[in-house]
Amino acid sequence: MTDLNERAAKADAEDPLAYLRAEFDLDPRVVYLDGNSLGAPPRRVAGRVEEVVREQWGRRLIRSWPELWWDAPERVGEKIAPLVGAAPGQVVVADSTSVDIFKVLVAAVRMAPGRREIVVDAATFPTDGYIAESVAELTGTELVPAVVDDLDDVLGERTAVALLNQVDYRTGRLYDMAAATAKVHAAGARVVWDLCHSAGVLPIELDALEVDLAVGCTYKFLNGGPGSPAFVYVPHRLQASFRNPLPGWGGHREPFAMAPSYEPAPGIARARAGTPDILSLTALDVALEVWDGLDLAAVRAKGLALTGFFMDCVDELLGKAIEVVTPRDEWRGHQVSLRHHQARELIGELTAREVIGDFRPPDVLRFGFAPLYNTYGDALRAARTLAEVVSAG
Amino acid sequence: MTDLNERAAKADAEDPLAYLRAEFDLDPRVVYLDGNSLGAPPRRVAGRVEEVVREQWGRRLIRSWPELWWDAPERVGEKIAPLVGAAPGQVVVADSTSVDIFKVLVAAVRMAPGRREIVVDAATFPTDGYIAESVAELTGTELVPAVVDDLDDVLGERTAVALLNQVDYRTGRLYDMAAATAKVHAAGARVVWDLCHSAGVLPIELDALEVDLAVGCTYKFLNGGPGSPAFVYVPHRLQASFRNPLPGWGGHREPFAMAPSYEPAPGIARARAGTPDILSLTALDVALEVWDGLDLAAVRAKGLALTGFFMDCVDELLGKAIEVVTPRDEWRGHQVSLRHHQARELIGELTAREVIGDFRPPDVLRFGFAPLYNTYGDALRAARTLAEVVSAG
Repeated sequence: MTDLNERAAKADAEDPLAYLRAEFDLDPRVVYLDGNSLGAPPRRVAGRVEEVVREQWGRRLIRSWPELWWDAPERVGEKIAPLVGAAPGQVVVADSTSVDIFKVLVAAVRMAPGRREIVVDAATFPTDGYIAESVAELTGTELVPAVVDDLDDVLGERTAVALLNQVDYRTGRLYDMAAATAKVHAAGARVVWDLCHSAGVLPIELDALEVDLAVGCTYKFLNGGPGSPAFVYVPHRLQASFRNPLPGWGGHREPFAMAPSYEPAPGIARARAGTPDILSLTALDVALEVWDGLDLAAVRAKGLALTGFFMDCVDELLGKAIEVVTPRDEWRGHQVSLRHHQARELIGELTAREVIGDFRPPDVLRFGFAPLYNTYGDALRAARTLAEVVSAG
Repeated sequence: MTDLNERAAKADAEDPLAYLRAEFDLDPRVVYLDGNSLGAPPRRVAGRVEEVVREQWGRRLIRSWPELWWDAPERVGEKIAPLVGAAPGQVVVADSTSVDIFKVLVAAVRMAPGRREIVVDAATFPTDGYIAESVAELTGTELVPAVVDDLDDVLGERTAVALLNQVDYRTGRLYDMAAATAKVHAAGARVVWDLCHSAGVLPIELDALEVDLAVGCTYKFLNGGPGSPAFVYVPHRLQASFRNPLPGWGGHREPFAMAPSYEPAPGIARARAGTPDILSLTALDVALEVWDGLDLAAVRAKGLALTGFFMDCVDELLGKAIEVVTPRDEWRGHQVSLRHHQARELIGELTAREVIGDFRPPDVLRFGFAPLYNTYGDALRAARTLAEVVSAG
């Protein structure tokens, strides 16, 4: 235990990103390990949102639409672009992840008229799967569940598109985006990556890997706030053929012309639908400022170190009392999942002790480590508290 | 002119709703007549949104989802329900108007398998028309444009659903919801009403008229803030057959069970899609408090009186120099549209003089009158300023 204390103190003292925690409004009594579900609020968000209500909305009123708000989906998208390895003009923020998955899957199916199958990673985030099923029904295609390791078994001439998650939300396993993308491309199909559990905390190279389409959540590791809108990546080479099934005025070439027929905007704006949600976009916009000048390799290194240290603590303090589900090697995201038959109750007991993780049915405890604000001390306190509640039965 | 001054002063002095203006954060130098496009901010919104960021998000973090946020779409929907004549359990707030139009049109087409036509009011709000076209493509149905006055010409055995706007956004004309609904029903079809330009400022009787489905915007007369989410009405009798084409986890029977297959929630929640946008829902929730205890008949009476007085002012101060497009009788909403070949320039000149209306191509000036905060003095100053800029050429 002493050794773990020393290790935590030393690692925190030497952490080059430690200064970032002060950017977040976190209760010092709480160990918050659920940033993979809802990121913590950057301090500057509350005041800025209030200012937008009072000044931009209250003083400028309708004039803020052309002056400040209309382009916010693209403007905020440009802040996300470097975090996912996208050159400018290819990321837009609009609607929820579910709605965006719908847009990109329908668009991908439309790009491949002769191919009638949608491959979906069987361990996908549930809402992605529900939406994929609806897309299959509306486009007359067939859903094919797949294990990412065995993609070759299902990919073929009938595959229009494969929807894959970079990080498995239950186990925390990180998939090899380069390898899986190459497999899908070898079959002549397009790949859609769901980046919900990876964007912002590890280097992603969408352009370099020639990924076709991607969608990601902004309220997890990107700290955009509860229900902040998702982002969509459509590379330049596919924008002309991207036909959005939700062609609202937001994606129109001339939205304010109020033209009777839809003509898509030439660039990434065509992935928008209706009126953008300005208060939530503002919170996200401000939250993303924390990434200014950050090196994602350093963020990733800290994420691996934090999760590794947490697993060491769990090994030492809990031993065989609990099972570590998350891969021990580098193929893991920034969460550690543990399995225990009383997972739900344990998460309840931890929460009562101000250690916050989450429960995923039927028996998984998840702990997300946000490299921007979590400490090695957090990891140790979480493991120690877990050991207490497990041994208390 | 003196007479108009006296009329305005008297009407404002006698206005039973005059006390409500103090609820809004409006610059006294500005005459704001664009509440039909973006409502003004109720004073209490800015502080409450900041509080949600600091307290609910910052202190409670993920715990706020089950405690406070998850049901917000239904909770805020219940505040809108009485404004549109809906009994509890039939209104939910989620996504944008465009996305919601998509949901209800697809759902309506699915309810009528043998019928292959979607009738859309030809003067519909453009985004509604774009979405309807996409729905037709995805469901293999045909779009049939119609003039509301001549609905009988197009309704028939092939009609699945008719999408109609209660108020024409260009002319301000108010349509007879009872008559049009009865016509659609006589053809055995379902009607979807777009309430974007009417909700909150006139009595609407969705239940009593047996309207099938409805969608409305919350950032116009409901003052929810820029891009606040729209609402959907699905009456109890159609909920079991409402199949949402955007079946995100938000509409799942057990959203937190993370089940592999989609099972819709039993009630109105099935019209939700992805994660609800809490900051915008909060602003809307607070904005709706202004309606507590308000009589919509009184709101409507003031709207008619304000628009009527404005037209009197325009007649007297501008005469034949401008054309009034909006109906003079009671079949008008709460806006007055004027036609002038220099409409765009005139709106620019008015804005420079702190009188804010808006321009709709090619030649329409629109002035929205929000009965909760506009005054007869606003109407007179707007007409007077317009007369000045018109006579200045």
